[in-house]
Amino acid sequence: MTQTPNINRRIVLAQRPNGLPDKNTLRLETTDIPKVSSGQMLLRTVYLSLDPYMRGRMNDAKSYAEPVKIGDVMTGQVVAQVVSSDLDGFVPGDYVLSGSGWQDYAISDGTEVINLGQPPQNPSWSLGILGMPGYTAYAGLLKIGDPKPGDTVVVAAASGPVGATVGQIAKIKGCRVVGIAGGADKCAHVTDRLGFDACIDHTSDNFAEHLNAACPDGIDVYFENVGGKVLYAVLPLLNEFARMPVCGVVSWYNLAGLPDGPDYGPAIMGTILRMKVKVQGFIIFDSFPQSTYKDFVRDMTGWLADGNVQYKEQIIQGLEAAPAALNDLLVGKNFGKMVVKVG
Amino acid sequence: MTQTPNINRRIVLAQRPNGLPDKNTLRLETTDIPKVSSGQMLLRTVYLSLDPYMRGRMNDAKSYAEPVKIGDVMTGQVVAQVVSSDLDGFVPGDYVLSGSGWQDYAISDGTEVINLGQPPQNPSWSLGILGMPGYTAYAGLLKIGDPKPGDTVVVAAASGPVGATVGQIAKIKGCRVVGIAGGADKCAHVTDRLGFDACIDHTSDNFAEHLNAACPDGIDVYFENVGGKVLYAVLPLLNEFARMPVCGVVSWYNLAGLPDGPDYGPAIMGTILRMKVKVQGFIIFDSFPQSTYKDFVRDMTGWLADGNVQYKEQIIQGLEAAPAALNDLLVGKNFGKMVVKVG
Repeated sequence: MTQTPNINRRIVLAQRPNGLPDKNTLRLETTDIPKVSSGQMLLRTVYLSLDPYMRGRMNDAKSYAEPVKIGDVMTGQVVAQVVSSDLDGFVPGDYVLSGSGWQDYAISDGTEVINLGQPPQNPSWSLGILGMPGYTAYAGLLKIGDPKPGDTVVVAAASGPVGATVGQIAKIKGCRVVGIAGGADKCAHVTDRLGFDACIDHTSDNFAEHLNAACPDGIDVYFENVGGKVLYAVLPLLNEFARMPVCGVVSWYNLAGLPDGPDYGPAIMGTILRMKVKVQGFIIFDSFPQSTYKDFVRDMTGWLADGNVQYKEQIIQGLEAAPAALNDLLVGKNFGKMVVKVG
Repeated sequence: MTQTPNINRRIVLAQRPNGLPDKNTLRLETTDIPKVSSGQMLLRTVYLSLDPYMRGRMNDAKSYAEPVKIGDVMTGQVVAQVVSSDLDGFVPGDYVLSGSGWQDYAISDGTEVINLGQPPQNPSWSLGILGMPGYTAYAGLLKIGDPKPGDTVVVAAASGPVGATVGQIAKIKGCRVVGIAGGADKCAHVTDRLGFDACIDHTSDNFAEHLNAACPDGIDVYFENVGGKVLYAVLPLLNEFARMPVCGVVSWYNLAGLPDGPDYGPAIMGTILRMKVKVQGFIIFDSFPQSTYKDFVRDMTGWLADGNVQYKEQIIQGLEAAPAALNDLLVGKNFGKMVVKVG
């Protein structure tokens, strides 16, 4: 079933998952297309972004954002096109960036909607390298990671949209950059296409030894996307005054409870103490001033034009394929930024 | 055997401990009193400071400081008196602050020695409230913890020299202050004498529930001295943008390896991520600019004079009692700042 002008397909949270989402977690529904009132516009989704944070919103846990309620449309950023508008500044045909969620059509009053204008060259890039993941990489690395020329920067999930961007910016800043990714194909992409100095396959035997060998001067910045065994291999290599921006811990998002031991708490906290490490969690939407966003747009636009930053997408066809694709993302089966072509 | 003018008693690291230090870890030796050469002075130890960091120096582990070598005198700050001097600025009888270590006499060329002049009113305070522990509390709380009026500040090891000072400064800054200490006596001291708003006994049943009840608005600053179950009870209570200066993890210093599970790594890192927490380890000697030290001396001298800061010491008699006293400190049997009266 594809997108049509008469029916709204939407994917709602049917029940909270215990571990990895399964067939009972999300439900595809159809509804009428909502009617536009005064001061509103109707948006038609073109691309839906899939991101690891979505797993967190399925939990009913204390967090920076409200959980998705049972029965509500799953949250998500989309690139949409304006179908009809009773709103100044938006005309039919405009491309916009919006939080419409996992559905074909949505009503908006313009709040937190960015008008991209007539079709941009790469509309989906607003969900990736020129959007939230790109800005996350930029601000997290530069404002928390504070990389200096000659520093060793280690990036987890190095072939993903955030990690790939972190590493390329770190190269621009004169750092030695070591990526971590799952599998030989991803690692080859990270070194050959993205220009990292090295990439370590975390699925290989002796992963920790390989990482150690790739970081002869220790680690000054670790950009944390994954947690788990990757974090635990990084800890003994951290240098004095190392910085660790914490952007995600995707390998742990599907835990139903604390995993079996040993308890790495003493290793984490002891390393922070002895090596005077700064570890800081951040959420792109509220951790940085507006001026940082302007710097990002200027710098990233330039780097893309110059070819200093490369960008890889994995396009999924159809809204109905989104749930399985999210699961792939959560277990590292994606390769590049995952975007669903909805309409 | 007490201090004499003719023999130097010293305590050396005999072997590295596996867990809590035992009778084979440290060894009392006697030597001749070292001879003063040109440009040197002879110091006689009056007070030796006992501090949790000393356990870390017994390990042969990557850390901010070199481990003590086998056979070397145990490291430690002392208040000493100048016996003889061939050094400008130091005359016999002067009281000094020095890193002489666990021994009666030491030769110094004046490097990193602070001259306290003629006997100060409370010479041993230079090892505590007016010295390293006091400055640790001051700088860690104010520069990393960044407490705002109305914030809830939770302090582990609240009756110890660092924790007691952290809490009293936080009260001066207008915060709600909740201490954590072991036992009813310590807790009574913390609330009644030091003026904390509450103190939770971590040895009680339902410790985590009691802590939760004492922090109805969550926790904005957690000053980490201990790790372990106290940290794990704090994690679920941390507010958005909470700050956690990491000064010590004393409950873990005697671990011979990682403890049994479950693994709290996901809880630590997940909380840092979701709540955008900043966790930062620091060592007082190299994490702050000189101006912070000057601010500390000015502020703390004033607070002590005004009675806004109270200070409690536990004086141990005799160098030979130091090893057992350090073990007491490591398991929380001390009450106040532990200082050994050596001579």
